Amino acid sequence: MATGMKDLPVSPLAPEHFPNLPMIGGMVASASRIGLYAGSRMDLMTVSFPEGASVAGVFTKSATRSADVNLCVEHLKAGHARALVVNAGNSNAFTGPAGLAKNAATVKEVQRLTGCAPQEVFIAATGVIGVPIAPNLVADHLEAAFKDHGAPNWEALARAFSTTDTFPKAAGARLDLDGVPIGLVGLAKGSGMIAPNMATMLVFVFTDAAISSPVLQAMISRHVETTFNAITVDSDTSTSDTLLVFATGASGSSPITTLEDPRAEVFSTALHGIFHDLALQVVRDGEGAQKLIEITVQGAQSNQSARIIGMAIANSPLVKTAIAGEDANWGRVVMAVGKSGEPINLDQLCVRFGGEWTARDGGAVDYDSARVDAHMKGHLIDILVDVGVGDGTSTVWTCDLTHGYIAINGDYRS
Amino acid sequence: MATGMKDLPVSPLAPEHFPNLPMIGGMVASASRIGLYAGSRMDLMTVSFPEGASVAGVFTKSATRSADVNLCVEHLKAGHARALVVNAGNSNAFTGPAGLAKNAATVKEVQRLTGCAPQEVFIAATGVIGVPIAPNLVADHLEAAFKDHGAPNWEALARAFSTTDTFPKAAGARLDLDGVPIGLVGLAKGSGMIAPNMATMLVFVFTDAAISSPVLQAMISRHVETTFNAITVDSDTSTSDTLLVFATGASGSSPITTLEDPRAEVFSTALHGIFHDLALQVVRDGEGAQKLIEITVQGAQSNQSARIIGMAIANSPLVKTAIAGEDANWGRVVMAVGKSGEPINLDQLCVRFGGEWTARDGGAVDYDSARVDAHMKGHLIDILVDVGVGDGTSTVWTCDLTHGYIAINGDYRS
Repeated sequence: MATGMKDLPVSPLAPEHFPNLPMIGGMVASASRIGLYAGSRMDLMTVSFPEGASVAGVFTKSATRSADVNLCVEHLKAGHARALVVNAGNSNAFTGPAGLAKNAATVKEVQRLTGCAPQEVFIAATGVIGVPIAPNLVADHLEAAFKDHGAPNWEALARAFSTTDTFPKAAGARLDLDGVPIGLVGLAKGSGMIAPNMATMLVFVFTDAAISSPVLQAMISRHVETTFNAITVDSDTSTSDTLLVFATGASGSSPITTLEDPRAEVFSTALHGIFHDLALQVVRDGEGAQKLIEITVQGAQSNQSARIIGMAIANSPLVKTAIAGEDANWGRVVMAVGKSGEPINLDQLCVRFGGEWTARDGGAVDYDSARVDAHMKGHLIDILVDVGVGDGTSTVWTCDLTHGYIAINGDYRS
Repeated sequence: MATGMKDLPVSPLAPEHFPNLPMIGGMVASASRIGLYAGSRMDLMTVSFPEGASVAGVFTKSATRSADVNLCVEHLKAGHARALVVNAGNSNAFTGPAGLAKNAATVKEVQRLTGCAPQEVFIAATGVIGVPIAPNLVADHLEAAFKDHGAPNWEALARAFSTTDTFPKAAGARLDLDGVPIGLVGLAKGSGMIAPNMATMLVFVFTDAAISSPVLQAMISRHVETTFNAITVDSDTSTSDTLLVFATGASGSSPITTLEDPRAEVFSTALHGIFHDLALQVVRDGEGAQKLIEITVQGAQSNQSARIIGMAIANSPLVKTAIAGEDANWGRVVMAVGKSGEPINLDQLCVRFGGEWTARDGGAVDYDSARVDAHMKGHLIDILVDVGVGDGTSTVWTCDLTHGYIAINGDYRS
């Protein structure tokens, strides 16, 4: 069965160039090719970590999540990582015993190559659902892949686990933690099936800071809410969503083992920055996306209520097609607010596009349509909604719904 | 602001012809033109009922529902109807005091023309949201419209409150209630913003049976769950959804005042048939629809759980675009089952397309792909999912997601 990626044009919302990224002490990696795609495209990323590297993460809440996700959840309990193996082209979701056999063979081969414990191996996969692959297909490539390990070629790595992505996604930061230079690099893939719950894509962040797994976990769980859980492309939730953060400790800094450590806040802020950057890159590569839409809801009963209203707007096909048509159709925004089921005060409802109020206090107002029209022609659409009942606020991001989405998804598998 | 309907091609899923419908004793009606659309298109339906006609109904649960819906909810408390006034071209939703003024003027003019009580007047509207119309725009046309009242031209009436519909929607039935011939006619409009909660469109059913408002209400509330609440086009909920059933009593039959009356079950079955027929016509006219999709979920923990899973599948853009591409992509069905959040047994999950199992007991199976491919090329797609945990079952209907949806909704208002 052909699972080849289309030759898609690069999203008009893509960053201008791949970022300059720091090296991460202690980790080596390679991009290689199993052959799950036609042509010469890379489809395997493998990474080795030094002994003692810590790991934490979050995963899809789908009830049909993949064997690989289940393995990571299990292995995460120990909190240590020596290897990461990620393939594109086949998600290993809904593959039953064959999926388990693939992972068992992969773990066994990594153990043979590195001498690590089974629970120090992390596996992720993305691609077509429900098509078993040969148990040894990944394992048989690992010896060559690990022999190739060296300083990471970040761009090649990001490409090696992409599917319908039109550009490789990465973000980095350099920190000074009490005189010790620290690097962070995040890589991500994802352009469809993007919606909560969770990261809704594959995201791997690497750092040479020394941080305990529980501290990492606390930071991840906090930041994922305002980043990867605040984006949606099509409301569909992947079976394979995985976000893992690996800390090699190779910078030589003393370990951060508590959130009270003053360095924790510095690191946490940088981690949030990387999550935010990658989350928006995923939306910028939403299938067929021509516009990035930022939706802020304020005046809600609670932050959670604001989030639900924001997501009702962000997932509304009628809102998203209107924006594709460069129409500031605030009536459809009102409709989406109404269907959210959350408390609102209709007589105080306000909607703003690009800084111009188009509706205030429950009714249409005269507005500068030239200014709004100009805003709608841009790549970044900014919508603010005030629902007039409280102090709750939330910001979410999505993209418009275009012919490109239909074209990409109407003929993916065949 | 132009709100003109596009010249859309008739849906390939439309019925072959408008149905032959019975006359309904006691009611007179006309289709006419206010001018809310460009050209010569009709945009107003008015109906008169005889004294003593009863009415019952259900409405959108949107928190931003229109002034017209609020009026109907209020007037329904008395349970009697003398007039129905429905316009297309402007939904009168989110129009604040101007919307209330329009309705007050309309009710007042109907009172002047008919001598009825205010709460015997029912008003519905559909079209653009948030654009106030002149308070007397509808009222000023009522005298001429009521002068034109005569035996209903059902097709003209159905067209007069359509928006982006590509065909007029109607269904009828003839009954014998203990020797008395009875007619039922249902008219509907709706092709986008179709999703629960509720009727999610405008539906008016007329009968010359004599039935009390509470009995009618009980039947409606029961049947709406398996018909209008079981369909979805784009998961968006209208601010104007209205379903009203009017019983003129002009057949001369003795009134049905209790569900225990043996005639109630006969009438109820016919009413369900009309709801079912109209609900499927609405999906068949889903914006851009090329295929009608019937999704049955069985083996769920409860019927409600089966409904939630069914709707997760029916609202998944990835499932809907795959079907547009004639791809029996059961992996995406599995994904949608997973995101529903409902209890399932992944090891027993089964998916069937057009009578062929494509996945059984949690994994792919070999299937007759020629048979499945042939099914996918047809107009009616049949999906069965068994989630393996209980006896709950539910059937929902939707349509595929095509370029046509984007084209229609990406440029509706301008």
